[in-house]
Amino acid sequence: MLGMPLLTSEKKKERLVAKNAKRMALINASAKLFKEKGFTLSSMRLIAENLGVEAASIYNYISSKEEILEIICFDIANKYMEHIEIVEKQQNSYLDKLKEIINFHINLIVEQRNFVSVVNNDWKYLSKPKMQKFVALRNKYESKLANIVTQGVNSKEFKPLNVSVAIFTILSALRWIELWYKPTRNIDKEDLINDVLEILIKGISK
Amino acid sequence: MLGMPLLTSEKKKERLVAKNAKRMALINASAKLFKEKGFTLSSMRLIAENLGVEAASIYNYISSKEEILEIICFDIANKYMEHIEIVEKQQNSYLDKLKEIINFHINLIVEQRNFVSVVNNDWKYLSKPKMQKFVALRNKYESKLANIVTQGVNSKEFKPLNVSVAIFTILSALRWIELWYKPTRNIDKEDLINDVLEILIKGISK
Repeated sequence: MLGMPLLTSEKKKERLVAKNAKRMALINASAKLFKEKGFTLSSMRLIAENLGVEAASIYNYISSKEEILEIICFDIANKYMEHIEIVEKQQNSYLDKLKEIINFHINLIVEQRNFVSVVNNDWKYLSKPKMQKFVALRNKYESKLANIVTQGVNSKEFKPLNVSVAIFTILSALRWIELWYKPTRNIDKEDLINDVLEILIKGISK
Repeated sequence: MLGMPLLTSEKKKERLVAKNAKRMALINASAKLFKEKGFTLSSMRLIAENLGVEAASIYNYISSKEEILEIICFDIANKYMEHIEIVEKQQNSYLDKLKEIINFHINLIVEQRNFVSVVNNDWKYLSKPKMQKFVALRNKYESKLANIVTQGVNSKEFKPLNVSVAIFTILSALRWIELWYKPTRNIDKEDLINDVLEILIKGISK
């Protein structure tokens, strides 16, 4: 019987790769739009316009702008969590652990600026169960960071600072980078990392 | 002719003082409400309810919630500006100038927490001309701060840091205090100031 040939598994794979690439392009374009206009003022129609495609066609890749927000928030939250869990297990000083964490934050902010901006500003628009999951992850991350600073204080590597003051000073100091850093700024990423480490690490270590 | 006696100047003064006190109570209650609900969701009716008075009566003291926002924003912006202008004229080291500025920020945040919170979150709801005035004041403040850090770097009191990185790290690190500090936290203001100074000043000074 004549008919359409069955797709070979190679062809299926190619199509899946192409679909994933389109989905990622859609999520990246959305992050850019959310950053510029804010999540509430962005719509699926506007996302499609920015991509130069029909609004209907983007539903082949994603069900709603809420789904895009979820993907962005958990992509970043999971990256932070995976990183701190690696750092926890490393056999090095608490000072080196803290340096690596600050380094990772700055790299992520610079490399995924739109995503980080969306997480910082729009996480509160997650659906209630997703928001609870997100807040739980953030609290877990902060408590892991507090734990590293506490151990650094106890081992006398760090000054006897109030741990909450120390971790929120660090996290807050890092927070501005997303707002300020642009490729057009007259400072490259490595210099930025060095200066921020110089201020925060030298201020915390004994 | 019988009639109302003319008000003595003493009585007039008393009434003015009483009117000012009521106006201040109204502004303070508004700041608390703006902080809790956000400026856009706060109304004159809600402000009146919080004060336990009729909505109509508050128009004797203030014309609109926009006027309250203006008073709050410029109260804080002017305090920062007056302070840095005093610090500029002092005959002391750049390190001491920077210490005084950080000290002043933390004090203002702790003592006028509601006002500072409103400024940080709601300045963008100022009317266009007031917002331009506010942004100009903020830019002027940042440039004065940048100037002090530049002189500290040039005089070798500070490390050779990128000045923008240094001032935004400081300002951003101070920013979280408004979100985190409460009288119920287990740390008093002086300890908070000491720890933040320890981190930021030791990180910046040579």
